[in-house]
Order: sequence, then C-alpha cells, then structure tokens
Amino acid sequence: MRKIEHIGIAVKDLEASNELFRKLFGEGPYKEEEVESEGVKTSFFASGPNKIELLEGTREDSPISKYVAKKGEGIHHIAFDVDDIYAEIERLKGEGFIVLNENPKKGADNKLVAFLHPKSSNGVLVELCQEIS
Amino acid sequence: MRKIEHIGIAVKDLEASNELFRKLFGEGPYKEEEVESEGVKTSFFASGPNKIELLEGTREDSPISKYVAKKGEGIHHIAFDVDDIYAEIERLKGEGFIVLNENPKKGADNKLVAFLHPKSSNGVLVELCQEIS
Repeated sequence: MRKIEHIGIAVKDLEASNELFRKLFGEGPYKEEEVESEGVKTSFFASGPNKIELLEGTREDSPISKYVAKKGEGIHHIAFDVDDIYAEIERLKGEGFIVLNENPKKGADNKLVAFLHPKSSNGVLVELCQEIS
Repeated sequence: MRKIEHIGIAVKDLEASNELFRKLFGEGPYKEEEVESEGVKTSFFASGPNKIELLEGTREDSPISKYVAKKGEGIHHIAFDVDDIYAEIERLKGEGFIVLNENPKKGADNKLVAFLHPKSSNGVLVELCQEIS
C-alpha cells in the first residue's frame, strides 16, 4: 500500500462532471478511457501524486450504474497502489478480508485490479491496483 | 490542490476500526486526536504521501454520528491540501461551489479546514485543508 493511487467517484454524466471537476482542480482531465468489460467510461484528473477517476456507467447493469441508481453520485472506492497484487491478496485474505476477485482483472489505466468487499472493510470499497509492466 | 491530503472514513467504533485498518495497512495508526469542537475522535494512518483519517462521533449530534446513523460506516470526505485556503475558497465560490464555512476553522492534525457542500460537487464532501504554520 504505497499510496492512494486514486479515488473513484461515480457520476451520472461524465461530460458534465468533467466540467465540474475542471473547475474544482483548475485543470481538465488528462485522459478518458472506456472499459468495455466493466460497462464504464472514465476520466482521470491529476492531484499531485494521486488521481481522481470519474466513472459513468455505460449500461444499466454495470456496477457503476447500479451504484448511482441506489445511492446517488459520490465517492465509490479508494484504490491503493501495491507492488505485488497477488501477495497482497493472499495477505489480506489471511487477515480476514473478503476479496471480491481473487484473480486480479484488467482495469482502467493499465492496471491489474482486485477489490475487497465493503462489508469486510468498514463500508469502504477498497481497490488494490498494480501497474501492468 | 497539491494532493489528496487525506480520506476521511466514518466509523462506529474507533478502536475496532483501528485494528481493522492495522490489518489492511500492515501498520497501526501513527496518532490519535480528539476534536472536542466537532464532537469527534480520530486516528491517522500513513499511506505514502497520503493519510487515512478514521472518525468516530463522540456525541449523538456530531456530524459523524449523524452520518453513520443515516448512511452507515464508509468514506465520508476527501481532503485536498491547498497552499492558501482563503484564496481557494474565493476561487471556488466564484466557480459556483457552495462553501459550507467561509471562515476556515481549526480541524484535526493542525489544519485550517473548509468544506464544500456535496450537492455542489457531485455528492462528494470536499475538504480543503492548509497546514497551520
């Protein structure tokens, strides 16, 4: 857990939210990316060593669309940068955390990602992510 | 907005959550602090250049107790480190954000803090914070 890699924020309308966060940060997103397999389009803002990822669902059954329908827009997850995602998954399982996908999957931004179930981590959806080299 | 200064996580029981996050990070909190005026006790974990702040309400009418009663435990706010909190408040007001306290107040961790209303920022409670020198 070397640092907060990014914070994921679920939004209804990526274009509108890009404008809002452009005002917040004084600078627009440095990239946009669609992850077809997750039914999501994303944009990334830089905040020093960290990123803010905005996520809009592209299908009704995508996790982000369901989240927004149920809870409204807001902070969706915290992602931590890890050196060895496989070792971290094993360590955290041993500590009693529920790992949602024990086989890391390809996420946005050239990362291997795995999630911990919020019910095992104080209501917080935690993402582990490792840059694919 | 130089970086994410910290993520604030609302919890029911600080002691139990300190143990949980000790397992998550492989290391315990580096400090604990009570902010009487806000009705909150807090602990801080290091994650590289960032911090995770756990918050437990100490009174039923504290914002954190009310949040947990209404929404359950989870991510409460994102705090960004700013150079000049007064200038940022003016800039963000000009951009249409609703600033909850235009006079920055003393928060935990030797910081001056101000909050943006979630309804003006995509459901995200944004904290601006500046180290008191």
